[in-house]
Amino acid sequence: MAGGRKELVNISEESLLENIVKKFISPILPGEYLEYPDDVKDLILGGPKIIVNIDGTSINSVKLPWRNYSDVGWTIIVGAISDHVVKGSFPRDVFVSIGLSKKDAHEILEELYLGINDAIKHYNLRLLGGDLNSSNDPWVSVAVIGYTSAKKPPRRDTAKPGDRIIVTNIYGAMGYVVYNKLIQNPPEWVIKATRRPLVYLETAAIIASNYRSIHASIDVSDGLGYALYEISKRSGYGIELYEKPIYYQELEEHCSSDRCLWEYILNGGEEYGAVICVDKGQADEIIDFFKKFDIPHKEIGVVLDTYPRVTIKDVGKIKLMRWDQFGGWIEIK
Amino acid sequence: MAGGRKELVNISEESLLENIVKKFISPILPGEYLEYPDDVKDLILGGPKIIVNIDGTSINSVKLPWRNYSDVGWTIIVGAISDHVVKGSFPRDVFVSIGLSKKDAHEILEELYLGINDAIKHYNLRLLGGDLNSSNDPWVSVAVIGYTSAKKPPRRDTAKPGDRIIVTNIYGAMGYVVYNKLIQNPPEWVIKATRRPLVYLETAAIIASNYRSIHASIDVSDGLGYALYEISKRSGYGIELYEKPIYYQELEEHCSSDRCLWEYILNGGEEYGAVICVDKGQADEIIDFFKKFDIPHKEIGVVLDTYPRVTIKDVGKIKLMRWDQFGGWIEIK
Repeated sequence: MAGGRKELVNISEESLLENIVKKFISPILPGEYLEYPDDVKDLILGGPKIIVNIDGTSINSVKLPWRNYSDVGWTIIVGAISDHVVKGSFPRDVFVSIGLSKKDAHEILEELYLGINDAIKHYNLRLLGGDLNSSNDPWVSVAVIGYTSAKKPPRRDTAKPGDRIIVTNIYGAMGYVVYNKLIQNPPEWVIKATRRPLVYLETAAIIASNYRSIHASIDVSDGLGYALYEISKRSGYGIELYEKPIYYQELEEHCSSDRCLWEYILNGGEEYGAVICVDKGQADEIIDFFKKFDIPHKEIGVVLDTYPRVTIKDVGKIKLMRWDQFGGWIEIK
Repeated sequence: MAGGRKELVNISEESLLENIVKKFISPILPGEYLEYPDDVKDLILGGPKIIVNIDGTSINSVKLPWRNYSDVGWTIIVGAISDHVVKGSFPRDVFVSIGLSKKDAHEILEELYLGINDAIKHYNLRLLGGDLNSSNDPWVSVAVIGYTSAKKPPRRDTAKPGDRIIVTNIYGAMGYVVYNKLIQNPPEWVIKATRRPLVYLETAAIIASNYRSIHASIDVSDGLGYALYEISKRSGYGIELYEKPIYYQELEEHCSSDRCLWEYILNGGEEYGAVICVDKGQADEIIDFFKKFDIPHKEIGVVLDTYPRVTIKDVGKIKLMRWDQFGGWIEIK
């Protein structure tokens, strides 16, 4: 065997992580040389400009009673790539850092990775690295590298008066959960809508190829109300909503007023839709793109030349809540 | 004030994270458009090839009694960039995800960020984003983007028989800590050597410009013995050590044998040196570079054409330990 590679005679017990990651790690591309278990990865670029984020999550905060750990893994990846899509970036390369307790690491890790892997495959991503840490309060942190052709990806603080606001995806299911906090067995439509949230990758193409007319954007991770409030506050202008985004019709059984519907719609979370503020002259063109790509969407409002605030036509101001890591459900003022 | 940006009349209490991150976040470069608090960051590339890693840490696992939280922040950044340097990558862009408990987040977060910021400034990095999560067992996860001119960054599994092994940095201090596990007040030299570990960025330049002759590399994060063992196991060849790396001379007061010195040297951690396996014909040239850059280094051994194992000339095999997140200090076999 001189000159050839040799097996260890007494191979040590491979680490838990390595055994599991090996199954799910993506193959390297021609022109790439590093791979797991090396601590870093070299990347062939997937576009002219790279976009990066890191997104940490306490596992317990996303572990709804009807989500198993593979649903949790899925949801965490979707949450991390949603940040990209809304900035016109195609997410591609994913790195995952995980903290689990010694007690349940064996049980949870593989299930988590199964859901992570489902999302990696579904969204045509690559899982390129990760590590495992000991933690009595389990967590996942995901770094995603995406690529865009947009010279100027839209910020959240640059909406302009007159911009028309387009919102993608469907609302109200997580709002239902929020308003029925301790619910263990919600109706089937709520489970279906929230177990594994979806993000529409093609939104990235629409935003990247129209970045000049899209003045501002943000994704909906902590509720649509909070997303709109962020755009308003950061941009320094008011927002008036004149139409509801697409919402689950089942909500109408629970609401006898418009105000009630709006509360469910605005105070949810993890819908991973896009809120985009489009130059008023180009909004119709952008809406056409959403139609062509079959992405559920609706024009819901306008940016005003007033002090920052979010109001609803014929309804006024409603109480906006958001989930705060430290404060729990807190009112946005 | 028509047309201008307006302040919120009733500004909500800004989040803890935002107040602190604002102080430390790096300014964007010309040609970059996104910045905190947007969820992603666009990057102007700092080199022809990008290198990425994610590195999670349980805060308690690096909180030596003589480290405050700013030392912990420093150490975590140094640990994350060390992975880059040893692959010929200049780390530049840093994203930090943090988990802290509600109880002590206020107290710890700013101190952590002070140390993170010290490392960012010292190593000419950029802090570009981060998030804060609730966790009863505090953690930090860091993603780093680096850049390299090396077409093929060295892997850890491609050492070749005959390669000479060069090791940078100084050993023995963390070994001293490991062998005196419950020590609260170690001697001053140990504190000085371990409180804020150092990494030598110029190592990246040496590796990037000599990647053809550097067959394999790994950084020393879990002990020099483990690093050598990884190279040996993954490459499929044995390693013989014939000289000690640079070590703290104070160790000689504690050791009456070579075997004892080797134990302290090999069973440490967080030294963040580089272990590189160099084609035997080019090793002198590489050593010259380390001299010119004033990086502490030593040629310590050779890759053999035998089964994987790490042995020491005139000493034989010694017990190698490494820190395992779940198993604690475990023997490497």
